[in-house]
Amino acid sequence: MRSLCSSLPAATTGATVTLEGWVHRRRELARITFLVVRDRSGLAQVVLPAGTAVPPEETTVRVVGTATANPQAPGGVEVTDATVEALTEPAVTPPAELWRPSLDVTLPTLLDNAPVLWRHPAQRARWELAAASLRGFRATLDDLGFTEIATPKFVESATESGSSVFAVDYFGRPAYLAQSPQFYKQQMVGVFERVYEVGPVFRAEPHDTVRHLAEYRSLDVELGFIRDHRDVLELLRDVLAGMVAAVHGLAGGAIERSAAVIPVVPEEIPVIHFADALALVGAPADEPDLAPEHERALGAWALAEHGSDFLAVEGYPMRKRPFYTHPQPSDPQWSNSFDLLFRGLELVTGGQRLHRPSDYDEAIQARGEDPAGYAAYLQAFVHGMPPHGGFAIGLERWVGRLVEAANIREVTLFPRDLHRLTP
Amino acid sequence: MRSLCSSLPAATTGATVTLEGWVHRRRELARITFLVVRDRSGLAQVVLPAGTAVPPEETTVRVVGTATANPQAPGGVEVTDATVEALTEPAVTPPAELWRPSLDVTLPTLLDNAPVLWRHPAQRARWELAAASLRGFRATLDDLGFTEIATPKFVESATESGSSVFAVDYFGRPAYLAQSPQFYKQQMVGVFERVYEVGPVFRAEPHDTVRHLAEYRSLDVELGFIRDHRDVLELLRDVLAGMVAAVHGLAGGAIERSAAVIPVVPEEIPVIHFADALALVGAPADEPDLAPEHERALGAWALAEHGSDFLAVEGYPMRKRPFYTHPQPSDPQWSNSFDLLFRGLELVTGGQRLHRPSDYDEAIQARGEDPAGYAAYLQAFVHGMPPHGGFAIGLERWVGRLVEAANIREVTLFPRDLHRLTP
Repeated sequence: MRSLCSSLPAATTGATVTLEGWVHRRRELARITFLVVRDRSGLAQVVLPAGTAVPPEETTVRVVGTATANPQAPGGVEVTDATVEALTEPAVTPPAELWRPSLDVTLPTLLDNAPVLWRHPAQRARWELAAASLRGFRATLDDLGFTEIATPKFVESATESGSSVFAVDYFGRPAYLAQSPQFYKQQMVGVFERVYEVGPVFRAEPHDTVRHLAEYRSLDVELGFIRDHRDVLELLRDVLAGMVAAVHGLAGGAIERSAAVIPVVPEEIPVIHFADALALVGAPADEPDLAPEHERALGAWALAEHGSDFLAVEGYPMRKRPFYTHPQPSDPQWSNSFDLLFRGLELVTGGQRLHRPSDYDEAIQARGEDPAGYAAYLQAFVHGMPPHGGFAIGLERWVGRLVEAANIREVTLFPRDLHRLTP
Repeated sequence: MRSLCSSLPAATTGATVTLEGWVHRRRELARITFLVVRDRSGLAQVVLPAGTAVPPEETTVRVVGTATANPQAPGGVEVTDATVEALTEPAVTPPAELWRPSLDVTLPTLLDNAPVLWRHPAQRARWELAAASLRGFRATLDDLGFTEIATPKFVESATESGSSVFAVDYFGRPAYLAQSPQFYKQQMVGVFERVYEVGPVFRAEPHDTVRHLAEYRSLDVELGFIRDHRDVLELLRDVLAGMVAAVHGLAGGAIERSAAVIPVVPEEIPVIHFADALALVGAPADEPDLAPEHERALGAWALAEHGSDFLAVEGYPMRKRPFYTHPQPSDPQWSNSFDLLFRGLELVTGGQRLHRPSDYDEAIQARGEDPAGYAAYLQAFVHGMPPHGGFAIGLERWVGRLVEAANIREVTLFPRDLHRLTP
């Protein structure tokens, strides 16, 4: 019966234990050989007579020995009188020493050797934060009556977001990869009222930046029977709080290993109107969007002024938002939409959508397009939709900010971009 | 403050309640008008004076009125003295009457009108079974120390499974859509030992059948430090039991509305060797695979012989399995792999994989290929992998069998196939 490394400190002295894992480190001293075994739960120390043959680091092994108290061993218990059996051929030396406290490699080395370098405990911790965040995301929404959906990644037209889509040869005719589940999650509000989806989205992003990927994980939420975008922001607040709680509850060790700084989600996220945000950062009043340096300045302001890592900027100009965006009732040049900045980086886009069919016809015609081209999407609206809205969180951006990664690729298991399709 | 329809039976008589939902049905009698409101939780009855203007069915409304006990109302409480406010323009009549007990439409009608016809309570129930199954799947694995992963859907080569892949224009060069996360989930066993992923997989399936889709949801699992494929099968048993428990616990109403027949997962799933399965169905001993009619016959046999809706067929011929499949140690013409039949349909494929780098080199060379073409994948193995295996469950097939759907498209929110890219 296998024991996990993390259970060794609780083992009875003298008990026979079986560990299975990787040779994390072997150290051959004059009178003794140390073997550190790594499994999914942590590390354990095995003490062997000098001269014992131990397979090279990263080889998988089964160790059978005796649990022995030793105050100097990690956790106070080590394995002695052990036999070590290799479970595979001797491992080739990895491109970096995984037993060192930090993984000191360049980004290309990390990415080219992802299958093995993600094994480093500090690197692995970064994904553990992601996995815990996903659990918190879903648990929060499940408790609030949301239904998980699965929407198609093949779509017929590239209409939603312009030209940066990937084209696919779909049985001899063109199709496109969905840039977001937006249209479908709205339609599903008509069925389930409250829906979410965690899935890949695809952006043929022609720019090589530290914060864009060609494929990333989008945490999409949409709900009906709202008053306006402020209801959406309230939900977003609760979802982020649920993600943070899950990270603390499920990934405490990962926080430590990755040196992540987990934010406190305020009871109420501070909100600033887009027009006020421009004024605050000294940008011209007719700027249509916030530049990255503006976002950073606003993030610093939110921290100084409100003690908050989060700031919602609401009211983005309608002309810069997608056609389904609901205008601000008091002044329709602005929108009932928001971006959420997390430590000065856009993490979430959200807002209220149009829900009346005539508003859609008008908005589509205003783009010089024919509503008939959107017939499948508009079905939901002509057959009755509630006021609704939602948001999308970028998973990799979230984790990137938690660990202050210089590049989003550092927190993505197998990033895809302009240049990279492998591993 | 909004009340859900399902909470109405618990409302205090005389209390003011606010419902928000869809006009499920309006019935104008000579002296009274009935309005049935539908929201995500269920239905509620509103009684109005004859002649009250009520918007057409499927229009979204807010109803404010008085909770009134009436033994003849569903749940014993209805809403009286109500005002009805439309939240959108009057809805266009749906292509089928959603208030009728069953949705009696042809498959093309269902699929062409998916955004609105999924609103029918019996149809919606089918997806509720899917969503509950996903929760059970994840909860079971989370409890067993698995880590959720996210693997890339863009892959560089079409090597894994032959020609039925979709090609993408990836920034001017060819890429392919992943047919499964197989290679990546194996690599991640090297990092997390136990991993799962729920995501879309893409098959350029040129055949138009009732059980194939071009895009479906695959529930992928992989784990290390197994003895052989029987360990994988044991885990699969527990995962299925977790899915069934979640369906009962979370989707009891959906079982009823969809008339689903939820299986009992036996403590131990019966297993038959491929060679014995061929003999049992009277097929020639050199058949390389089971035909659909063989699977149905085996399903009937498992039910008659073992009282089980599930049957694992192990030992499939190596020549029909992918190159990473582990052979059966006692006779290497057979494999340590299995298919799980559920009610006579292949639901899951799983098994033990090779883990020694030299075995991979040999297996790839035996296909007449150069291992260098698999360098990124093989990294994981040369740097030490444990004996491992896993499986993949097709979500739509699972739900399809639960409700005995004649066609897998009936249980898929927005199916994609040879002919269909919309809605």
